[in-house]
Amino acid sequence: MTAIDPVDLTRRLIACPSVTPLEAGVLNVLEAELRTIGFEVHRFTAGEAPDGPVENLFATRGSGAPHFAFAGHVDVVPAGAGWSSNPFEPEIRGDLLYGRGAVDMKGAIAAFLAACERTAEHKGTLSLIITGDEEGPAVHGTVALMDWMAARGIRPDMILVGEPTSEHRLGDTVKIGRRGSVNIWIDLPGTQGHVAYPHLADNPITKLGALIQALKAMPLDEGNDWFQPSNLEVTEVSGGSSACNVIPGVAHARLNIRFNDMQKGAGLVARVRAIAEDIAPGAKVEAKISGEAFLTAPGALSGIVTDAIRSETGLDATLSTSGGTSDARFLSKLCPVVEFGLPNATMHKLDEAVAVEDLAILAAIYERIIRAALG
Amino acid sequence: MTAIDPVDLTRRLIACPSVTPLEAGVLNVLEAELRTIGFEVHRFTAGEAPDGPVENLFATRGSGAPHFAFAGHVDVVPAGAGWSSNPFEPEIRGDLLYGRGAVDMKGAIAAFLAACERTAEHKGTLSLIITGDEEGPAVHGTVALMDWMAARGIRPDMILVGEPTSEHRLGDTVKIGRRGSVNIWIDLPGTQGHVAYPHLADNPITKLGALIQALKAMPLDEGNDWFQPSNLEVTEVSGGSSACNVIPGVAHARLNIRFNDMQKGAGLVARVRAIAEDIAPGAKVEAKISGEAFLTAPGALSGIVTDAIRSETGLDATLSTSGGTSDARFLSKLCPVVEFGLPNATMHKLDEAVAVEDLAILAAIYERIIRAALG
Ligand SMILES: [Zn+2]
Ligand SMILES: [Zn+2]
Repeated sequence: MTAIDPVDLTRRLIACPSVTPLEAGVLNVLEAELRTIGFEVHRFTAGEAPDGPVENLFATRGSGAPHFAFAGHVDVVPAGAGWSSNPFEPEIRGDLLYGRGAVDMKGAIAAFLAACERTAEHKGTLSLIITGDEEGPAVHGTVALMDWMAARGIRPDMILVGEPTSEHRLGDTVKIGRRGSVNIWIDLPGTQGHVAYPHLADNPITKLGALIQALKAMPLDEGNDWFQPSNLEVTEVSGGSSACNVIPGVAHARLNIRFNDMQKGAGLVARVRAIAEDIAPGAKVEAKISGEAFLTAPGALSGIVTDAIRSETGLDATLSTSGGTSDARFLSKLCPVVEFGLPNATMHKLDEAVAVEDLAILAAIYERIIRAALG
Repeated sequence: MTAIDPVDLTRRLIACPSVTPLEAGVLNVLEAELRTIGFEVHRFTAGEAPDGPVENLFATRGSGAPHFAFAGHVDVVPAGAGWSSNPFEPEIRGDLLYGRGAVDMKGAIAAFLAACERTAEHKGTLSLIITGDEEGPAVHGTVALMDWMAARGIRPDMILVGEPTSEHRLGDTVKIGRRGSVNIWIDLPGTQGHVAYPHLADNPITKLGALIQALKAMPLDEGNDWFQPSNLEVTEVSGGSSACNVIPGVAHARLNIRFNDMQKGAGLVARVRAIAEDIAPGAKVEAKISGEAFLTAPGALSGIVTDAIRSETGLDATLSTSGGTSDARFLSKLCPVVEFGLPNATMHKLDEAVAVEDLAILAAIYERIIRAALG
């Protein structure tokens, strides 16, 4: 048996065009490797078209406590047009391996498998929680995996999510939390009319101006030791037509709030609803909470990760909670969760690429993490 | 020679589907009648596709001072779908004559011709200034007629515009002025970005909120004896897309100001521009002044018109400046201008209709006006 080469395995994973929710053979590649290195592999499908079906994978080796799990996704965002080479035909040019998913996050999965191979003897349980629906609606992936695990009484003690958290150099940033996110749609009612007779109309765009001002003036928080202040942005407005002389009957706004662990999604929605109702009685307010904020307070797990990074790279990683959401928002309900992976500069972009050298270093860091967690 | 029957002539004018900028034979009907009752008729074409060509008509009878002119338009707005009868096949049902242009304003033109026939002996000059481009962009109609008249040294002393000014009953309202109107388009620049990284972006929708508030708070005026206060309405806003996590790079607003004779269009545009530039440096502001406000101070001309109305209907007409714009905004540069015509309840609507009786009464009022002006 040859050792797992993280570069070679990354290439084989990229070659499967697993754009959400397609499996495209990527889990077959993964399953074969996992079985070779002693994992029991479970696969199951969840959901229906158009968001599914989604194929998920849970793999486990060893038994009992402690239970350390690696979580990740094999799906990728669409390639888009304009790549220098075929996004699903991995190609090394210079020091970089190009292909969709190279950093987000097939490279990290390959590095983790290489690390697993080198740590065949460990205490407790080592698991992989692999979703095929992280870049999509994320309803039939990690959430379904958590249901599947709960039904079998499986609950890790520590989870490392392999998302690309590094910013400038591999190892510079570890995420110990994420802000929550809520999207809110508001329809402001008015009374349509002619601009020459404003007393017969009720312009909802005037209310929209007041609403935007009031929302931006709504006090949130100043942030705390681990989080930036919560922030609200109005991301879309519309109302009226190209008819210059018509006061419209309705105006719309869409907004997003990124919030820290001092807020709850429902509380923010209630405050926005009250403001909208105050400015425009009868306003229609609809909200979708993508995820609540979470924090894994710095401690044992983050210590293991930062120690491993320091040993391999000499870097003191920053503990961060910035950026977008990830499936860690779900997993954090189970146990401490920390995220660490490749540099994210090219994720979701054209010519996504990983430094060949980084794959080897990441495998070494992950190996140290497994040894520290289950040594 | 039979007398001109305003109902019959209105029918013949409606039967020509002269939707702006089409002539559709309507000026031929008019020219024949005018020649029969002693007018010299001049016709000319102005403009090119798509707003033209537009056919206009100037007719005159008599010579020297005083010079009283009637102004009107033979073009009509499109019929739209859903009429009870063919909009260009005039039909009397009950007391009403139905057809596109019945009140706006083929009926008034027919009534004026009937009045002209009955006033064959008059002092000075009696003219008709007839445009085929009032309901459209209005660039190749009255403006071109004024150029044509200026080139020939023709300048009336008084003008009566036959627009449908009556509101509930024929004779209840005379317009002695109109508000001005300006449309302004504003592009507010920002910096596109991701909602998770607001410090790297600059949200133009936030500025849009401030802009709407500032524009609505901009002090205009309280109105005066003859005019309502000037008023600004934002008629359209847009910005952003359906992507919930993107801060857009630009936001747009469109607004309209209806202003009285205490304001000038250019001054208002300058103030809006200063506010936009203050809130969003680099804002792009484009404006189109549709017309300045004008007032024909109550006096000889309005007295002639209200006296004639009182004699025929017993009503004391209200002197008004409310409502939209009309070509009187151009003609008011020449001399005192007053507008008086049929009830406007059905103008521009489905099943536009004029009361058959009103056509006779309007002809009688116009006859009294001609006699008073040129008697
Ligand atoms: Zn990812
Ligand atoms: Zn009209």
